[in-house]
Amino acid sequence: MTGSLFRPGAVPFTERTPRVVAARKLTRRAEREKTGRFLAEGTNAVEAAVKYGTVHELFVTERAAAAYPALTTAAADRSVPVSPITDRAAAGLSETVTPQGIVAVCTVVDRPLETVLAAARLVVVLVDVAEPGNAGTVIRVADAAGADAVILAGDTVDPHNGKSVRSAAGSTFHIPLARTRDVPAALTALRAAGLRTLAASGYATTSLETLSFDTPVAWLFGNEAHGLPDEILTAADETVRIPLYGKAESLNLATAAAVCVYTTAMAAHR
Amino acid sequence: MTGSLFRPGAVPFTERTPRVVAARKLTRRAEREKTGRFLAEGTNAVEAAVKYGTVHELFVTERAAAAYPALTTAAADRSVPVSPITDRAAAGLSETVTPQGIVAVCTVVDRPLETVLAAARLVVVLVDVAEPGNAGTVIRVADAAGADAVILAGDTVDPHNGKSVRSAAGSTFHIPLARTRDVPAALTALRAAGLRTLAASGYATTSLETLSFDTPVAWLFGNEAHGLPDEILTAADETVRIPLYGKAESLNLATAAAVCVYTTAMAAHR
Repeated sequence: MTGSLFRPGAVPFTERTPRVVAARKLTRRAEREKTGRFLAEGTNAVEAAVKYGTVHELFVTERAAAAYPALTTAAADRSVPVSPITDRAAAGLSETVTPQGIVAVCTVVDRPLETVLAAARLVVVLVDVAEPGNAGTVIRVADAAGADAVILAGDTVDPHNGKSVRSAAGSTFHIPLARTRDVPAALTALRAAGLRTLAASGYATTSLETLSFDTPVAWLFGNEAHGLPDEILTAADETVRIPLYGKAESLNLATAAAVCVYTTAMAAHR
Repeated sequence: MTGSLFRPGAVPFTERTPRVVAARKLTRRAEREKTGRFLAEGTNAVEAAVKYGTVHELFVTERAAAAYPALTTAAADRSVPVSPITDRAAAGLSETVTPQGIVAVCTVVDRPLETVLAAARLVVVLVDVAEPGNAGTVIRVADAAGADAVILAGDTVDPHNGKSVRSAAGSTFHIPLARTRDVPAALTALRAAGLRTLAASGYATTSLETLSFDTPVAWLFGNEAHGLPDEILTAADETVRIPLYGKAESLNLATAAAVCVYTTAMAAHR
């Protein structure tokens, strides 16, 4: 496969080839929403996309085809068109400083909220999370902890953003994702699905290590700077803080989510 | 204080003022090692530096002095020289895209290894960690979890790096830090201090949720890409993995450390 892609005389796509130009537009949210497609960049994300997602086309540089032959073979085995591109075209499709030279054009992965909550026992909800890397890291943590879904609620960043996909290291394609603007409606849906809603807050009186996790749980995490909105803290079944045993005043979003979600998951598996 | 700093006619330091030029050099590791000083940037770090560290001089822009009057007052109360600087000088001292305009010149905080291990019950050891943001985030997590020290071992980045200080959000000054190139010697010192050494590894057979934490513990975490060196995995008392309940193949360093260290700390406080 690799040989046929980069055989002598074959001309790789450049940054001006229409399909590359069209793919490059997917780095913008508006274009992703218009087309229902997004880019997965790098080996972890592409491997998961090929295995669990819907890939329309895989772009690879000659160097990447040589470095990751199993990936292009796996794509070809699933009848995914694999197209050679120049290093410059790869740089144009990449949002990293040192592109790996492998980018997949995928169908967006989010699903309707109701469909991801059926029989769910552990759900993670991000409310107004601003930083794509944080959203991706929490998606990865939720996947690792065996959560059933991640809900991106309110003004939370698009999980199809390049940095989010990269931080998720493949988990974008592993775990059901749903998006909703309407946070109170999401809370109602979580409750209707039988999930106890736990709102993470540094000001809560209930401390994480005192909780027992014998019922299905939805963890809610808020914006990096402002936390969860007051109305959500009030509406949740319980607000919970992570105990701070030293002098630090808080944890960052991703590490706080890791502690809460893993504490829940390990308790359920003990 | 603020008024006197920026009284009409007072001339703030520019990027060419010798003390600003000298401070700017501290963004380089070699200069930090030569002078034993480093820069703490932003309100969290500066507040902790003034309270717990040794600050030689605090540079503030007019905007920052107006926005954070308590910080300049606290510095002046401790006889720290507070010097007004221009926005451009602040940008030169900053390693962020949007500088807060407040930077402290501090004495480096690391101490000899032996002094930080006395009576320690929870220690975090970073081996060959490459990314300053990760080192800072783990220092913050260790502080929050009430750890007694963080050891930066082997080729681990300098915790006085600007990005590390920023990610630590003040914890650089809260928790004892020690640095050593010699990882095996650090292991020996940890053992001599009565700490059980637990090496985090995705390939370990012992899973985190099966451990009990009734003895003092040192957690060892390795490089972001390569993990811990084989000889350290062999030398540690136990290798431990975080259980992966979903499809993710791993966690990133900071979230993995958060899960391990907090699981230990919460068990000890239950």
